[in-house]
Parts: sequence; structure tokens; C-alpha cells
Amino acid sequence: MSEENRTGPSRRQFLTSAAALGAGSVAAGMARAQTPDPLITEIQPWAQQFGDGVDATPYGLPIRFEDDVIRRNVPWLTADVTSSINFTPIHALDGTITPQGCAFERHHSGAIELAKPDYRLMVNGLVDRELIFTYEDLERFPRENHVYFCECAANTGMEWAGAQLNGAQFTHGMIHNMEYSGVPLRTILQEAGLSAAGDLKDKWIYVEGADASSNGRSIPMEKALDDVLVAFKANGEALRKEHGYPVRLVVPGWEGNMWVKWLRRIEVSDGPVESREETSKYTDTLADGTARKWTWVMDAKSVVTSPSPQSPITHGPGALVITGLAWSGHGRIARVDVSKDGGMTWETARLAGEPGNRALTRFYLDTEWNGEEMFLQSRAMDETGYVQPTKTQLREVRGLNSVYHNNCIQTWWVKPSGEAENVEVS
Amino acid sequence: MSEENRTGPSRRQFLTSAAALGAGSVAAGMARAQTPDPLITEIQPWAQQFGDGVDATPYGLPIRFEDDVIRRNVPWLTADVTSSINFTPIHALDGTITPQGCAFERHHSGAIELAKPDYRLMVNGLVDRELIFTYEDLERFPRENHVYFCECAANTGMEWAGAQLNGAQFTHGMIHNMEYSGVPLRTILQEAGLSAAGDLKDKWIYVEGADASSNGRSIPMEKALDDVLVAFKANGEALRKEHGYPVRLVVPGWEGNMWVKWLRRIEVSDGPVESREETSKYTDTLADGTARKWTWVMDAKSVVTSPSPQSPITHGPGALVITGLAWSGHGRIARVDVSKDGGMTWETARLAGEPGNRALTRFYLDTEWNGEEMFLQSRAMDETGYVQPTKTQLREVRGLNSVYHNNCIQTWWVKPSGEAENVEVS
Repeated sequence: MSEENRTGPSRRQFLTSAAALGAGSVAAGMARAQTPDPLITEIQPWAQQFGDGVDATPYGLPIRFEDDVIRRNVPWLTADVTSSINFTPIHALDGTITPQGCAFERHHSGAIELAKPDYRLMVNGLVDRELIFTYEDLERFPRENHVYFCECAANTGMEWAGAQLNGAQFTHGMIHNMEYSGVPLRTILQEAGLSAAGDLKDKWIYVEGADASSNGRSIPMEKALDDVLVAFKANGEALRKEHGYPVRLVVPGWEGNMWVKWLRRIEVSDGPVESREETSKYTDTLADGTARKWTWVMDAKSVVTSPSPQSPITHGPGALVITGLAWSGHGRIARVDVSKDGGMTWETARLAGEPGNRALTRFYLDTEWNGEEMFLQSRAMDETGYVQPTKTQLREVRGLNSVYHNNCIQTWWVKPSGEAENVEVS
Repeated sequence: MSEENRTGPSRRQFLTSAAALGAGSVAAGMARAQTPDPLITEIQPWAQQFGDGVDATPYGLPIRFEDDVIRRNVPWLTADVTSSINFTPIHALDGTITPQGCAFERHHSGAIELAKPDYRLMVNGLVDRELIFTYEDLERFPRENHVYFCECAANTGMEWAGAQLNGAQFTHGMIHNMEYSGVPLRTILQEAGLSAAGDLKDKWIYVEGADASSNGRSIPMEKALDDVLVAFKANGEALRKEHGYPVRLVVPGWEGNMWVKWLRRIEVSDGPVESREETSKYTDTLADGTARKWTWVMDAKSVVTSPSPQSPITHGPGALVITGLAWSGHGRIARVDVSKDGGMTWETARLAGEPGNRALTRFYLDTEWNGEEMFLQSRAMDETGYVQPTKTQLREVRGLNSVYHNNCIQTWWVKPSGEAENVEVS
């Protein structure tokens, strides 16, 4: 378990990273406590009085010192309520779970308030028995729990034509990763009965939400019967309003737009509806000006979250933890490599824990920084053997005019000052 | 994956649990939508206007309809700030992750506000080199991520003499389960150097917090070098103030009091300190009036969270999901059984996902309720072969005067009305 011995800096390097009690030596460039340090040797105000009770905050919020770790938007991307996007502060998070409170949110006509007593789910179309479920009905079916990532197809979408947004939150923050509890969609469909649909191979479902946009999407029956969940809860508690309370669809590994919120209706049909959200939107413009559709799966992707523009290095040379996130809509992450020189040489990162299926995987490179500039990149590989492409490789196929499905390798230029900037390397 | 076929009710039973569209028949006792149902056939107000934007809540809270899913205290247990306990609303949660905002909280002199620039961690005593770390120093060591439960030793402690608190939140809610990110304590101790301590087998550490109580506890070196974490983050984000911001100790499987918050000092010593928190408190009074100490590990335990007094059955006979949580401080849960008749007969529950090491495991029994009273119990077994004891078995060893380490089987009397009550069965 001594991971630091495998890829990390030597013990000797760490010995210079903390202040020796009573000794005064300070290694060059290291931020550190002075010794003797009154903050540890003297009794501080917070040890001389009672702290706060917790009864006043029966549902707590982050401490005020962390009030910058919030969802943020990009003003020029949010002209009105229908185009509102809020990004997860991934640069400031660690681990894999995203708290609901700061999990990115995209909607098409605002987040609606829909109380459980007013909730209904209709299943209609080519079913043996058209049904309407109340929320309470749904709770009576066997439930499952799974951790899945949800990524907007437009994540990193502003970077096609060049490095544009200066922060991992804005370039890669349209993603979150939560533990969902819900009923397999398969169970709901089987309850309605699918014998009326005949051969299921060429059948589809059409799902829509209860909001004004309805955000209707077509899903092939094979996926619908596989791992899709009709979910009530995320990270143990009820879905937040903006995440589709009381019920949303969870479509593991597939683009976030299909994870219909405030789920209202599921229609079994002979073919796709070709709705607005899958024709004029959520298709990929190619280099020749044509568009391709049905690009549902989010391909393998990764990003270094720290250091990054919003999370600069604030100490001098020596021990440095480089960390980030990797994921694949096709399954599990197999390996992540990190480059400090813009992709010329690569080191294999340490994965924190067993990678989950269609879930975020945290990676670390425990390394030593020489104080010189770095062109930091990460490159994910998934269990299918797929390797995350460079921007150049992606543009050869897709051109510059796409918005969706940009899973290219990201570069952060880390300067000797420790500050970082979004750049491209050729 | 069709779990409902293994332990759940038959398809036929489900067919009567949702309203058939256009048909008017209602199975006896089932709560359900009327058909035709204007809530699905008519355009509702929330589909005729924009919902809310999300920019106004850059860090979101639960929807107002869920404002009862909060930490709660028991007034007679919270005489003043030093005895404040808030319980997790486990009766209303699903899955395994506990959101920080409603995760139980126990402190001994209030939750202090300690900013990162003011944070220091001292390592002293029998070390080669006494050290003081800043927060930033700690972030430069290799980190790990693990999901662990944290249970207060006093959880279920009010139930020794008889069934007392009427709700799973109050009887079993001094527990939470989060994904922690932090540095292994082993790394910190090795940084200070342990050769000065000689034979580590009989050595201890003493850990204390920066709050007025200091809450000092002694931990054997073997555990300190095993899986203890110096943690910064829970569920991806910074620890909340009441959970020890910016740094707490995570002592997997061991009683919550040892998970020292606002971690200030670690001293390597020849023996335990025998502090207040491990002598007059956090020892177990036995039947003969003597007390036993060093009962650190939280033995295997489980509880049905729904149905339960705060989560009654609100529908008639038919399909019913019984669910709950199981955990063991000795490792992984191997099996959970559920009884409907107060322990006379048992059915094996379905575990949702691979049980984690020293983490909460969700179990389900997908069953059919005949509408008659039940005496619901759950019984956990862990990978060591240990079986959760009955209250009677536990009292034979421990008597009635203990507070801590009550891991007995809990009974909920579910009445024909669907309401439930905390009772004991002989």
C-alpha cells in the first residue's frame, strides 16, 4: 500500500517539505510554517471558547472559507434561462463523488418544481398495457444503486476552434458523478408488457420531461433494456430540483441530454422521433459541413484538475501531486498517462481505487516539480482499448465547427510562477 | 441482472400496482393514480412557463418539499453545546453515500471555524524529527480515496434498557458514510521518522483536535500504520465545519470519537494517555458494575430504514420494498437476513452492489406484504463470520447500564395501518 514508494518522490524530498520543530531552516521556495510557530505553540482563540452548535443548520452548507467552490456559469454562454449552464468546480474537488449542491446543471426551460403528489409517469405506445405510475407506485419496484458519471455532450465544446476558457471548471465541468438509486427502466417496460412491440431489435423508446421544453429524446430499445435507471435519489438523498426532482432518467455512459429530468412519459415506438433535441441540436457538424446523428456514447476522456488555471501551484519546487479525472462511456478506465512536456513523454498515473463502470476515476501522479514550466496533459485509455485522441487527431475527422463530443487531450501550460493557462500544443 | 425475478414479487403482482390507462379498476388497498388522470393528460402549469434558473443557487440545497430530511436532535440528549448530537435522517435516504449536509455530527465543545492559513499539524514525541505541517504541506503527500462509515460509539445507546426512541434516525442515525480523500497517517509518521520509537509493537499515538475539548484519544501504533487517513475532503469537497474542516482523522471501522476533528497534534508515545475521552467516557459498563476499555471496533450491525416509524407503509397490501443498511468495523458485510416475525423465520436480503470494506452496505428485500402486522428485524453477518446479536444475547454479557457499542438486532412493529413502532420482542 505504500504508493509513494512506487511513483512518488523519495522520503528525502518529503523531509524538506515540513518545518522541523525548533529548527529554523527553510528549504528554498517552500511555503511552510515558521518555527517556533505560535499557531501551534500558543493557545489559539478557537481553543478558548465554545464553537458553534449544529442545530441551527440541520441541513448544512460548506464553510464560508470555501465559498468559491460553487457552480459557475460563463456569461456569454448564458443568454437567457433556456441556455443556462452551470459548471461543476472540478478544479477544487478531490475523490470521485460530486456533491449534488455543486454538480453542473443544464436545462432547456428552467428547473421546475414538481411535488411528489403531482408526479405521474406514463408508459404508452407499443405496449401490452398502457400505464400511469404515481411516485409511490415506482417506489414499490425493486431498486438498484450505481455510481455513474453524467457528462453534457457539449462539455469542452467551446474548445474546438482553439483554447478558449481558462479553467478546468469551464472546459470540463459539465460533468458530475453520483450514486443513483432507482428502478431499472427494463422493469417498468416489462410491467407494461412488450409483446405488443414484436421484435424488439428495431424498436425505440421516446422519453420526455414534464418541463415546458419536454426535452424529448429517442433511445434504442437495446439500451433501454440494458442499464438505464428511473432514478429517485442521488448520493443517497432526493434529487435536487435542478437535477429532475422527483424522478429522472439515468442513461449510463450516454450524453447528459438523454438523462431526461422530471421524467413524464416513455413511449415505445417503431422508430426514433427525430425530435428537435436530436436533429437541430445534439448532432455533430463534420469537416465537410454535414452532420452526424446518434452519437450517444461519451468516449474516453480525462483532464488534469490540479494544477490548472483555477488551481495554480502555490509552493516552490519539490513534491507535487498532479491529479485529475478520467471516464469512459464504454465502461471502465484501464489506464491514465500524464505528460509534463505536451505529449512528448508520458508517465503512467496511479488510479485511486478500482475504476467503476461508466463512473469517474480519480488519478494521481505523485511527482517532483523542478520549478520549470510544464505543458501538462492527461490521456485516458478504457477497457475497450480506446485511447483519448489529441486535438489534432480529432479535428482531422471532425473539423472545427462542432460543439458536441470533444474528448481531446487538454493542455495546461504551468509557468515557473505556478500559474497555469489553457493552451494548445501542436 | 433481473433481481426482481430472484427475490421479488411476481410480474402478476406488479401488474396490479399501476393504473391502466383508460381502465378504471383499482386493486384493493393500492394507492394509485385515477384514470384518465388530468395530471398526465392535461397540460400542467409547470409545462407552460419557464422554471427557475440555477445561477441564484451556485451551491444548491434540497428542494423545499424535502425540508424534513434533515439532521435532528433529541432535546433531552442535548442539554448544552458540549452534548449536542445531530442524527442522520437514515429513514429517508437510499443508496449508501451520506450527503455531508445531513450527516450526523457530534462534538464536545462546538464546531470551530479554523481557516486553512491558521491550520497547523504537529507531530511530536518519540519521532526522529518533530514536525509542524501547514495545510499546504499536507497536500503535497500522495493521497488516497476510500469510502468508510463513521459510527458514534453511542449509536443505539439509548436502547439498552428498553425500546425508547421512535425512529431509525434516532436509534441508528449516529452514522454516516462518505468518500474520504487524504494522506495515509502512515506517510505522515514515516516523514517524522519512527526509528526513535524503537519496537513499534507496543507504541501508541495520541491524537488531539484544535477545539477547546481537544478530544484526545490514544490509538495503538498498529492501527495508526494500517489504514488511518489524515483527510481533507469528504464526498469530493472540503470537510464541512462540523466535520472537522480543514483536516480530520479517519479511523476506519473504529468508534467515531477517535476520528478527531480539526486535527492538531499527533504524539508518538510509549503507552496510552488514558485521557478523559477513553476513561470516564467511551468505556463500556458491564453487568457486574466494572467497565471495559479499548473497545474501539464497531461490530457488525444493521437496521431496517424503511418501513420504520418515520417511514411508514403508505399503501395497501402487495409489492413492498423493505430496505436498510448494514456495516461492520471488521471489514465487509457478507450477508443480511430479514425477519418479518420477530426473528422466528428469516429471508436473505439482496445486497445492492459489492459490499465495501468498513463501509455501509444497502440491502433490499423485495417482497409482498399481506397487510398484516410484522415484527421487522435485520441481522448482519460480516466476512469474519460474526453474526449480529439479539438484544437478549448482548444484555447477557453487558447488562443494562451501558451506553456504548449496542449493535443488537432492532425490531420495528409494523401495524396493519402501515405505521411502525420501536418495540422489543422476547
